[in-house]
Amino acid sequence: MSLNTFGHLFRVTTWGESHGPALGATVDGCPPGVTIDEAMLQQWLDKRRPGQNKNMTQRNEPDAVRILSGVYEGQTTGTPIQLMIENTDQRSRDYGDILNTFRPGHADITYHQKYGLRDPRGGGRSSARETAARVAAGGIARAALEALVPGIAIKGYMTRMGAMVLDRARFDWDAIDGNDFWLPDAGAAPEWEAYLQKMRKDHNSVGAVVEVVARGVPAGLGAPVYAKLDTDLAAAMMSINAVKGVEIGEGMAAAELSGTENADEIFMGADGPEYSSNHAGGILGGISTGQEVVVRFAVKPTSSILSPRKSIRMDGSPTEVVTKGRHDPCVGIRAVPVGEAMMACVILDHLLLHRGQVGDGPRGQIG
Amino acid sequence: MSLNTFGHLFRVTTWGESHGPALGATVDGCPPGVTIDEAMLQQWLDKRRPGQNKNMTQRNEPDAVRILSGVYEGQTTGTPIQLMIENTDQRSRDYGDILNTFRPGHADITYHQKYGLRDPRGGGRSSARETAARVAAGGIARAALEALVPGIAIKGYMTRMGAMVLDRARFDWDAIDGNDFWLPDAGAAPEWEAYLQKMRKDHNSVGAVVEVVARGVPAGLGAPVYAKLDTDLAAAMMSINAVKGVEIGEGMAAAELSGTENADEIFMGADGPEYSSNHAGGILGGISTGQEVVVRFAVKPTSSILSPRKSIRMDGSPTEVVTKGRHDPCVGIRAVPVGEAMMACVILDHLLLHRGQVGDGPRGQIG
Amino acid sequence: MSLNTFGHLFRVTTWGESHGPALGATVDGCPPGVTIDEAMLQQWLDKRRPGQNKNMTQRNEPDAVRILSGVYEGQTTGTPIQLMIENTDQRSRDYGDILNTFRPGHADITYHQKYGLRDPRGGGRSSARETAARVAAGGIARAALEALVPGIAIKGYMTRMGAMVLDRARFDWDAIDGNDFWLPDAGAAPEWEAYLQKMRKDHNSVGAVVEVVARGVPAGLGAPVYAKLDTDLAAAMMSINAVKGVEIGEGMAAAELSGTENADEIFMGADGPEYSSNHAGGILGGISTGQEVVVRFAVKPTSSILSPRKSIRMDGSPTEVVTKGRHDPCVGIRAVPVGEAMMACVILDHLLLHRGQVGDGPRGQIG
Amino acid sequence: MSLNTFGHLFRVTTWGESHGPALGATVDGCPPGVTIDEAMLQQWLDKRRPGQNKNMTQRNEPDAVRILSGVYEGQTTGTPIQLMIENTDQRSRDYGDILNTFRPGHADITYHQKYGLRDPRGGGRSSARETAARVAAGGIARAALEALVPGIAIKGYMTRMGAMVLDRARFDWDAIDGNDFWLPDAGAAPEWEAYLQKMRKDHNSVGAVVEVVARGVPAGLGAPVYAKLDTDLAAAMMSINAVKGVEIGEGMAAAELSGTENADEIFMGADGPEYSSNHAGGILGGISTGQEVVVRFAVKPTSSILSPRKSIRMDGSPTEVVTKGRHDPCVGIRAVPVGEAMMACVILDHLLLHRGQVGDGPRGQIG
Repeated sequence: MSLNTFGHLFRVTTWGESHGPALGATVDGCPPGVTIDEAMLQQWLDKRRPGQNKNMTQRNEPDAVRILSGVYEGQTTGTPIQLMIENTDQRSRDYGDILNTFRPGHADITYHQKYGLRDPRGGGRSSARETAARVAAGGIARAALEALVPGIAIKGYMTRMGAMVLDRARFDWDAIDGNDFWLPDAGAAPEWEAYLQKMRKDHNSVGAVVEVVARGVPAGLGAPVYAKLDTDLAAAMMSINAVKGVEIGEGMAAAELSGTENADEIFMGADGPEYSSNHAGGILGGISTGQEVVVRFAVKPTSSILSPRKSIRMDGSPTEVVTKGRHDPCVGIRAVPVGEAMMACVILDHLLLHRGQVGDGPRGQIG
Repeated sequence: MSLNTFGHLFRVTTWGESHGPALGATVDGCPPGVTIDEAMLQQWLDKRRPGQNKNMTQRNEPDAVRILSGVYEGQTTGTPIQLMIENTDQRSRDYGDILNTFRPGHADITYHQKYGLRDPRGGGRSSARETAARVAAGGIARAALEALVPGIAIKGYMTRMGAMVLDRARFDWDAIDGNDFWLPDAGAAPEWEAYLQKMRKDHNSVGAVVEVVARGVPAGLGAPVYAKLDTDLAAAMMSINAVKGVEIGEGMAAAELSGTENADEIFMGADGPEYSSNHAGGILGGISTGQEVVVRFAVKPTSSILSPRKSIRMDGSPTEVVTKGRHDPCVGIRAVPVGEAMMACVILDHLLLHRGQVGDGPRGQIG
Repeated sequence: MSLNTFGHLFRVTTWGESHGPALGATVDGCPPGVTIDEAMLQQWLDKRRPGQNKNMTQRNEPDAVRILSGVYEGQTTGTPIQLMIENTDQRSRDYGDILNTFRPGHADITYHQKYGLRDPRGGGRSSARETAARVAAGGIARAALEALVPGIAIKGYMTRMGAMVLDRARFDWDAIDGNDFWLPDAGAAPEWEAYLQKMRKDHNSVGAVVEVVARGVPAGLGAPVYAKLDTDLAAAMMSINAVKGVEIGEGMAAAELSGTENADEIFMGADGPEYSSNHAGGILGGISTGQEVVVRFAVKPTSSILSPRKSIRMDGSPTEVVTKGRHDPCVGIRAVPVGEAMMACVILDHLLLHRGQVGDGPRGQIG
Repeated sequence: MSLNTFGHLFRVTTWGESHGPALGATVDGCPPGVTIDEAMLQQWLDKRRPGQNKNMTQRNEPDAVRILSGVYEGQTTGTPIQLMIENTDQRSRDYGDILNTFRPGHADITYHQKYGLRDPRGGGRSSARETAARVAAGGIARAALEALVPGIAIKGYMTRMGAMVLDRARFDWDAIDGNDFWLPDAGAAPEWEAYLQKMRKDHNSVGAVVEVVARGVPAGLGAPVYAKLDTDLAAAMMSINAVKGVEIGEGMAAAELSGTENADEIFMGADGPEYSSNHAGGILGGISTGQEVVVRFAVKPTSSILSPRKSIRMDGSPTEVVTKGRHDPCVGIRAVPVGEAMMACVILDHLLLHRGQVGDGPRGQIG
């Protein structure tokens, strides 16, 4: 896992800056014979695409992805797949005033301290636009997963946005795609929208919690100690811009439980072991149990806000920063398809790893 | 980062099972010329060692570490350092009844499903004993860090144990080493102890939150996108047994904040930039700011409890499991030195990476 | 080092097929602040470009490289550099007859056996066109090396082509760039040309030996045991299409020497240690000595020839293959800039590794 | 592939110095369920062990290997296998005079220049003793290969030693194990022995060529571009101490051939494709053809000789070095089992990689 690469056998390297000519992902290790076309990838990119409704930045990028290699006559060949998204709506004039100023909450100051120079236009490499490349790569991973594990389903949704909290009693998987917040509770969406619009009008922004679930993951994926399934999921989610916390299953709340409460008891079901609960989030000892794999992550509030914040210039002089331009009041919304993409990449990677380590043949049977 | 290896340039591979002849860590990439001896490593291992007080398992392992390679006349040579800890108090008869039974909350069932066989004695590879090897490796990392960044300090402590919560207003850095809970509040320790002893007597266990802080980390460590400092910290902590959540700075609570609340405003101090707060946990865009690096993780309650839990045998038949043997009522306590060790490894790794990428020479100056 | 990636800290991933829309290289780990532009890279690509003289294939590709990321206002930013070369002169009709036929000496049959499908146009991924991406990446490595080690020089040349053998007594470093064969002996070039044209007219091809030398490499680069400088150079050269042998210094001929003959005796020179000879090729124990680093590799004769060779079709039926299309009679010629590029990548990678491991500060002094 | 680690999925990290307490290998990624015991590994170590006959160093090390982890009741568990060999016959007094002197042809000077310090006893990390760890790890690889690909056979032998050259017309596979030189020509062994003893009496040493063949390797192993099977074999062999050249199949001699001579023509046999010849060494486009995989490497003459050679001391002053101690007159002999071990590791690694990438299921059929 190098600096801009993620994964063991299914390896994604993203490249590109917010306002350069293009950005993309180099995907190495996709199995051969998977059916892929640009339209399949585009559906996931469209889910992440800005400018779709008033709860998002109004920057309008078509985010059209092109496949430059690794696919022949609609099938992957097993060689590297290059995915390119050209930047079209760059308006870099919006960002001219940040050349010598460090925006609080942004990577401006740390990139400067590390590298001594940076592409300041739109945040350069640290822009959330980088996640478009991840979503495209995640589309490849989804297609490969579906070919290898028919029926697998990966879905993300919001469970919190500032003071708004999902009511688990009203959880509705089928409602998720029907509202601007990927909210599994259609009835609550208008309240969330009113809340977010008030934030925006107040020149403010707000954080969020995103939960991603994978259904149909076979038991046995993962690895001991460092390349555990949960380790790689934690890394995957924490690598997304603005993420500050990652939870598996019960997550931080596990600290409040007793051993008797936390135990997921085991029963023998018709198709194999079943569990009385899923505090573990589908992972025991770093290896999948066959239950739903459940990951949750917190996204901090957008740092680019219209309210002035104190900062300094490159020469150390004090200033106040008001970040104009077009920004999402809650980047957590657009983090939903990104989290799904990372989940797909990690599960596929571990499926390939498992196959390499253990093979498709017989392994531990129960019952 | 392979299956049992952690790190980019400072690479730690742990090996060994709970009840095999020995366990240890192969440490590759330690800079040459660092002063090391076994006694230095032993002090950290003693911190993690079981059997020291009544809040821990009474398994009594001396956990004496031997350096088998990579150190000559008290100095590292730049070649791999092999650290070995022999297992002495193995009492595997305690575990005989788990050969065909899957303990709820343990990796027994997933290891079986993955590999088809496993070393069942004491949890084998998935035992918390594996973390002794991490602590030894962390001792190497600490020594190298101190040589390269004089004054750097890494410290872990508990902030929660079940219903017990650290009162931040009473936070006392100097109290941490003075009680059995690594609690930064000496006055609260008796109450925590009473709470834990009650749990134990109830044949129960409890979860915990551990916070690890690194002071004196230079600005500029980290890398863009996938090998971010926070990504690697999240992976490091999530790779520890029983960890279910990881937070950087504000962590999951960032979801509840607005952009104006979350902004760490920047000022020019005498020695460089300073910040009004540290919601970011010392990391912006994956790169260290020079503030304290703050990581927090939740440890689930010990799964090995004396209260019976429902489970199945390898043949699918139902059973009840009561895990006898000597177990910690709160594994979170012993996770404190493990978290410190992982923090030390990650910071050193990124220091070396940064030096490789950018060098020791001039980079971005401020003021 | 993954499937399509080369390097530890300076990592090059190539992608793209011979007749797809484009090919290129994702370059991760280039230090920040290196001056780069497309014209600098183009000079190296032009050296490898086909269609320049009658000793090369007449396929005419401009091989114009575009920098899509990682460079801002003419300087590298430390983030991934995407290099893209669009394929323009594809003429895939030349290759139509190979869809179901395996060309002897080509990867057609093994790609089919491995993947079950492949892009057959022009050899797809296994085409020598892939090396254009390496040459572009090598241009980045050269620029970074020159910034970090002023005066370093990397040069490749031919020492053998079939029956033609370089006369070492006439070796002339300055002659290399003045003839079609990168031959360090201007006087011999006409004879080599006549020989090669005869081969071509006979519908045949011929192998070659290429030698690459790096002057000015500092002592101390390399690593123990597996990531030795010579290990990585061997891997680098063997990874080039059609290469069948790699030698460091004395190479295979070392087997014929006695210990007294092979010893490079050491003297103290004005600027440090000097050696009586360079049988070692500038590398001892995997680490550079400060002498010239000397690597040699053999390129097999072009497998695509107009003389019929026996083979089989995908259904197993026998056939004869005559490879039409435009092919180099000696691919060794165009392997010269590729070998230089790989040398530059390996030396830079080890320079960065060394800096990460050991730093820019004091290390072992002599005298 | 890090500094002291070799392999992608089957990863071997060696550790230890010649005269430290122990050396060994950490083997990660061995499939579960492989039958292993110490006696199996010992047979390969005994093949490499010094002191067995007068053609070897008289250093007498039992080289007894212990398995410390990863094997339970005689079977691998899929977790890391730690192999330890204790150093017993260390006699470090033999080496006392080299503390401040650089032996020509040794890594003394480059280790000093790189690290500023080193373990000088017996060459420390750069001693050929390191290869004992490789041979032990190779024993694991062999056992796993035999379980996965029944009938696979890996064998090394000498083809040259100074002026002595194997007569290919007398090649006898069954003779290899019957003489001190692993020579596939029993009749020639006495002449080789006389030649080597003369070298020794002349206070000299001599180089060698070792060839390693793998029979029964399935078609389809390898990977495109950088992780080619031949790339990894070249790296594997070049990483062995004293190796200066590596060849696949025709090797360097490919440069002398024409395209018509070099073509391995393809026929349909009863069990799949067959070839008229094997100039390719069983690898096309980086992927195995199903033929014998043939690798050859040159080992330089032992640098430790009793004839004085000019050198310098650490302070730059001139000196003459006569290396006393017990040294092999031809290290090539003991490189034979090391080359076999590396071949086994690479083939197994690519078998696992292939399974991960492509699976055990259907792929390209022929006929």
